[in-house]
Amino acid sequence: MNNLPNKIEELIKVISSLPGIGPKSAERIALYILSMSDSKVQKLVETIQNTKKDVHLCPICFNLTDKEICDICANPARDHSVICVVEEVRDLFAIEKSGYYNGVYHVLHGSIDPMNHISPEDLKIKELVERVAKGNIKEVIIATNPNFNGDITALYIKKLLKPYRIKITRIATGLPKGTEIDFADSVTLSMAIKERKEI
Amino acid sequence: MNNLPNKIEELIKVISSLPGIGPKSAERIALYILSMSDSKVQKLVETIQNTKKDVHLCPICFNLTDKEICDICANPARDHSVICVVEEVRDLFAIEKSGYYNGVYHVLHGSIDPMNHISPEDLKIKELVERVAKGNIKEVIIATNPNFNGDITALYIKKLLKPYRIKITRIATGLPKGTEIDFADSVTLSMAIKERKEI
Repeated sequence: MNNLPNKIEELIKVISSLPGIGPKSAERIALYILSMSDSKVQKLVETIQNTKKDVHLCPICFNLTDKEICDICANPARDHSVICVVEEVRDLFAIEKSGYYNGVYHVLHGSIDPMNHISPEDLKIKELVERVAKGNIKEVIIATNPNFNGDITALYIKKLLKPYRIKITRIATGLPKGTEIDFADSVTLSMAIKERKEI
Repeated sequence: MNNLPNKIEELIKVISSLPGIGPKSAERIALYILSMSDSKVQKLVETIQNTKKDVHLCPICFNLTDKEICDICANPARDHSVICVVEEVRDLFAIEKSGYYNGVYHVLHGSIDPMNHISPEDLKIKELVERVAKGNIKEVIIATNPNFNGDITALYIKKLLKPYRIKITRIATGLPKGTEIDFADSVTLSMAIKERKEI
């Protein structure tokens, strides 16, 4: 549209730079923000600013926290001898929501990605090795994504941690629960057959 | 998750109050904002604040604008004797994008909604009648949504504008172009048959 004011165009552009928001949603959100009361817009803006100011990375596991050390690392009820390695904070959130895991975490903040020139030095891998080197770790569960970058990151970490003689595991790949075999992609299906278990 | 910092929870809550953003997207966007550089967050926040400050409603058609009068109302090349009445600014944007319409607009900022106690007085209907009463209007095209609220709003406006002896039209309902008949809902299909045209 030629007649869209530049200011609104700019707002739509900024909003559509957020993940998962296409141009249509961005337009809808921009118009919604412009229809909000001044006080509500102020609240939105302040929440963004305050959260950004107060939230930082946990110095142990690199989870996000507004405290000195994150709640998971500070919790004595969790098993501090098991570290689950994830690519992103959102993966940590997803595993926490499942409610199954009681160990601690290590967030890499990415995966090795040769195509985009992301190398091990760009990730929190050195810090993971330092944590393991301090001792008292029994197992490292590598929960990087089951794709090319996640796989090479897992292999790289496995190689680095080998000298410490701890248990190193990778989360299982296979058919997601509740799905149907004829909808599964062929790679997942091949993996599920290859990794079959006796019952 | 029990261990999600309150600050992040609050940010997720504020973001998920925006239209079309579910809890999962809100979490993803919140984490993305927290991973952005301080200067980028500042840019996001300033764009929201500046746009909100500078953009207001056009006093003629109630479109959004950062000028005294919106670009459409100020454009002498457009046909000011034809007014297209829409519920929301996003409807105006959608029609502008189609590129077909060359008249001007009138944005009601809602539709008559008895269930939610939105009555004609809450909309820019009085202002539409005033525009028509001033004369020089040949046609009012009512482009409210083809649903219950849009229909009663259209009927109400038609009744109010009748004394002015101008042409009052409603945009056509029927099958969307490019769709297939067996996927159309029965109401749309009934309407399409009822409003059939000789070819």
